[in-house]
Amino acid sequence: VNSFKVTIAYDGGGFVGWQRQADGVSVQGLIEGALSALDERAVTVAGAGRTDAGVHALGQVASFSLERAIECDVLVRALNAHLPAEVRVVSADAVPPTFHARFGATSKTYRYRIWTGPVVSPFERAYVWHVPGPLSIEAMQEAAQALEGRRDFAAFQAAGRAPGSTERTVTSSLVAFDRADDCEGLLTYTVTGDGFLRHMVRTIVGSLVEIGRGRRAAAWMAQIVASRDRAQAGPTAPAHGLFLVRVDYPVG
Amino acid sequence: VNSFKVTIAYDGGGFVGWQRQADGVSVQGLIEGALSALDERAVTVAGAGRTDAGVHALGQVASFSLERAIECDVLVRALNAHLPAEVRVVSADAVPPTFHARFGATSKTYRYRIWTGPVVSPFERAYVWHVPGPLSIEAMQEAAQALEGRRDFAAFQAAGRAPGSTERTVTSSLVAFDRADDCEGLLTYTVTGDGFLRHMVRTIVGSLVEIGRGRRAAAWMAQIVASRDRAQAGPTAPAHGLFLVRVDYPVG
Repeated sequence: VNSFKVTIAYDGGGFVGWQRQADGVSVQGLIEGALSALDERAVTVAGAGRTDAGVHALGQVASFSLERAIECDVLVRALNAHLPAEVRVVSADAVPPTFHARFGATSKTYRYRIWTGPVVSPFERAYVWHVPGPLSIEAMQEAAQALEGRRDFAAFQAAGRAPGSTERTVTSSLVAFDRADDCEGLLTYTVTGDGFLRHMVRTIVGSLVEIGRGRRAAAWMAQIVASRDRAQAGPTAPAHGLFLVRVDYPVG
Repeated sequence: VNSFKVTIAYDGGGFVGWQRQADGVSVQGLIEGALSALDERAVTVAGAGRTDAGVHALGQVASFSLERAIECDVLVRALNAHLPAEVRVVSADAVPPTFHARFGATSKTYRYRIWTGPVVSPFERAYVWHVPGPLSIEAMQEAAQALEGRRDFAAFQAAGRAPGSTERTVTSSLVAFDRADDCEGLLTYTVTGDGFLRHMVRTIVGSLVEIGRGRRAAAWMAQIVASRDRAQAGPTAPAHGLFLVRVDYPVG
């Protein structure tokens, strides 16, 4: 058995999400299909982040084992030859068979992109949330920082909550303009943590925008956390502004 | 009568090109449709560059006159409200009624994007030509520079040549990696001139890639020009790597 860790980028626009579903095309399904053709048997893939429908990835990580022996660079080429151009395997590494992309991950980083200018470029239309007009970036930065640490993020979880703890540790939560000299352009929210609840990043972003627009004070963010009540948080920002940027694992 | 100059960006992927055609959706047709709805009469638009099917624009310029009086910022918003997200009016300026976007232009700048790395990002797939493997950038730079000046570009014109002179003046013709520290990534060809024949930039790029791959010497470019024969030039590079970047007009 040969075990692999692959890094994958995808344009999530046309997919039902990472995870295989009863209907529609999933990224997991496409990769499992390509691997099953390669290995001439059914192959199951574990993904680090179960991105929702429409969410993109620059550095999703997946793991799987094959019967067939194959070099990493050959695996990358063979997978990309099978996959549509919307999904690309960026790299592959051999790993111990015990490696699991999701359970082994120590942290994940997501980035959300907001376009604040009046007109959205045709080339960005599928990759930003359009929030025209001035946003108070200082208030957003203060509110974002209040999320760092071990917190119960129940208030930011999608309705129909999954079983299990809603506590997560956010190690970094930052709002910034993409260019240092900018004050009306691409605003990004970048968050790193040991795990994320369903819709958590998008609901944080929806709340940050309420604060940026001045409808709420920066201190509102801590009140949302304390409430543990989804009804207290802001709206869920659209999926197409969100990117899974990278997944980290223990060194060695 | 109120005359306007508008700057337009578009993702050319889904269009038959700038110019109205018997079949298919053109950018000109969309803008004329939006303006005709606004002015409640048929409006004809002149575009500076007649980009082909699949070619993109960051700074196309168009001109037209309306019966109705309208502020420039209102015009931008009204047009964008009518247009699909693939086409955006970036800005509008009032001009004298004699202004003509094509005949008045002093120069146009096109950029062609080539991805030389092994894997194309899903987010770039519709906007680069994938030419994997090393290219001799020095040879390409030398060949590109040989095109600067007043030249007869007949050899780079699409078959079924249009009537009229095939002489044009290229003021700048440059090959460069997008990032100064790069040697395998995004390679761009940027060319400025007083006018371009149909397929001229794409055939120059197809020839430059032959040179970059070492199939031809840099001096081949001057031989193609001297031949004035399309059969001597390289292949036509695909449309989706090409962008009309800007159009310049006399100052004042």
